[in-house]
Amino acid sequence: MQRNREGINRQWLLISRPEGMISEGNFRWTESPIPSPKEGEVLIRNLWLSFDPTQRGWMSQDTYVPKVPIGEVMRGFAVGQIVESRRPDYRVGELVGGLFGWQDYAATDGKGLFMMRRVPPGVPPNLALSLFGITGLTAYFGVNDIAQSKPGETFVVSSAAGAVGSIAGQIAKMKGSRVIGIAGSNAKCDWLLHEAGFDGAINYRTENVGTRLSELCPHGIDVYFDNVGGPLLDEVLMRINHHARIVICGSISRYNTGESYGPKNYFNLTLRRSRMEGFLVQDYASRYPEAFEALLGWLGEGRLKQKEDAIVGLENAPKALMRLFTGENFGKQLLKIADMMPATE
Amino acid sequence: MQRNREGINRQWLLISRPEGMISEGNFRWTESPIPSPKEGEVLIRNLWLSFDPTQRGWMSQDTYVPKVPIGEVMRGFAVGQIVESRRPDYRVGELVGGLFGWQDYAATDGKGLFMMRRVPPGVPPNLALSLFGITGLTAYFGVNDIAQSKPGETFVVSSAAGAVGSIAGQIAKMKGSRVIGIAGSNAKCDWLLHEAGFDGAINYRTENVGTRLSELCPHGIDVYFDNVGGPLLDEVLMRINHHARIVICGSISRYNTGESYGPKNYFNLTLRRSRMEGFLVQDYASRYPEAFEALLGWLGEGRLKQKEDAIVGLENAPKALMRLFTGENFGKQLLKIADMMPATE
Repeated sequence: MQRNREGINRQWLLISRPEGMISEGNFRWTESPIPSPKEGEVLIRNLWLSFDPTQRGWMSQDTYVPKVPIGEVMRGFAVGQIVESRRPDYRVGELVGGLFGWQDYAATDGKGLFMMRRVPPGVPPNLALSLFGITGLTAYFGVNDIAQSKPGETFVVSSAAGAVGSIAGQIAKMKGSRVIGIAGSNAKCDWLLHEAGFDGAINYRTENVGTRLSELCPHGIDVYFDNVGGPLLDEVLMRINHHARIVICGSISRYNTGESYGPKNYFNLTLRRSRMEGFLVQDYASRYPEAFEALLGWLGEGRLKQKEDAIVGLENAPKALMRLFTGENFGKQLLKIADMMPATE
Repeated sequence: MQRNREGINRQWLLISRPEGMISEGNFRWTESPIPSPKEGEVLIRNLWLSFDPTQRGWMSQDTYVPKVPIGEVMRGFAVGQIVESRRPDYRVGELVGGLFGWQDYAATDGKGLFMMRRVPPGVPPNLALSLFGITGLTAYFGVNDIAQSKPGETFVVSSAAGAVGSIAGQIAKMKGSRVIGIAGSNAKCDWLLHEAGFDGAINYRTENVGTRLSELCPHGIDVYFDNVGGPLLDEVLMRINHHARIVICGSISRYNTGESYGPKNYFNLTLRRSRMEGFLVQDYASRYPEAFEALLGWLGEGRLKQKEDAIVGLENAPKALMRLFTGENFGKQLLKIADMMPATE
């Protein structure tokens, strides 16, 4: 199978830990020889990169995974194609997903943190990183298992036009909830109302979120799927119903500030007999097939609108990541590195 | 059955809503005629009053119950004896518990918010307000249902020498957890270690709680039974294990300040796949018999140490309530109004 013409592996290394907002200066572009896979490894050519808010955490500190070491390739989810295999169970040409990083090529045994998974048959690489990647899986298990959404409930989601939020809201809608999204532009709110089928949308940059929540949720809030944190979480806590569930999926408001805002109204969890719960999608790995089947079904029936925001060229990877934190992205932020190659050697 | 000699009903009325710490000035002493029960009502002579942190909330604002109206008798749990009955199902001389308020006598139909319950046979009135009142019930359902404590876990409780905390810690201990209590004096810590059988105790007034938690919980914290809130909650959140449960039972640090401290480390709920949950014991009313049976069993086996802090005289009711917020009380704060009378008319 063909390598790129230059025979080089272009890479973005992490060279410093960000203080506050990330910048291009935290990364260094480098060009290395294409690695040779050892016995038990495969060589992967990356085709698409996924950008996820959690990467901001990986740059700074040990969390649920160790931080990215300084001087190493920036960690990121990717879908690539196997171009050389020294594992009997993987063939050249197969599409695989994993934490292959910001580079053209990765040699890996596909185990541990960098666990490699086959892309389900018929799923194109961009969808493998969005709806069929951690994005869709996070939305699926968050709504089903943590929120336990029920028909007739009021479901509010922040970062609603973002990758996870837009899918979470649509799944809640299919489960019979009234769904209200909070997003950062009129274009995003329009998309939520007219494409994604949300029942209400709030532009947090131009509207008073508290007032609008009271208007749009006259019977209170049963589920809050939170990707943002910050004072918004307090506005919701003020309006929760008895037995409400708050899914702490993300907290993008704090990723670049170091300062964390604590929800002052958390005691409403007691007064309204409610809970706030976090989760990490990798704990559900054994149930991914169930989620893939459901998501594939909804997609096939045309009931799930998927919005992608794709830019092209590995050189733009730092910019793509920064878009997540400025709100520039609209839908799942992806980056295309290369086209899929025909699966013939 | 005998009334008090003077034939009067001494009462404490709520006359103003506290700003910050409560004071005696929020109440007014008054003497009224003893009420006559209407058809369907009973007349109760209060024997003991219970003091509970939640009463601070009732003085200020509508929460899970409406606030106490200005000019009315201060609301509080009491155990009393029926001195006159115009209900066929209650006999003179029976002991009953309910929200009978800060007064000598209450005439009530025993329904609604002021629901009357029979004291289980053989339980003395003081225990009916502590171990067999909302105190013991809150501890029981908090540890069993919300914390879901398991053997081998590390269980931390704040206000550990307080009414609910001391029982919660002992129940967790019986369920096989290692139990660490946080309290406000060396005498309280000594009692926790040498009487209540806790595995560790921290004096938050003289020790660095974070450092001590790290020392006493070398394998992290699985359950936090929180009666306090405030920065302590953040110290615990920093040290929770995967799948930790934080029971938000109370938040006494904020009841008198108006200012609420939001837990800045709440996002560890996500990174450590954990939850924070509130509850109100009245939701478990249908399961009170189960709790009574368990508590009675443990008490009979000598496995539950119950610490009461009783003062005497209705005139001291405001002072008794204030003791909860200064940390003066050590164990369940009670007030004795009158002795039980022989059940003969």
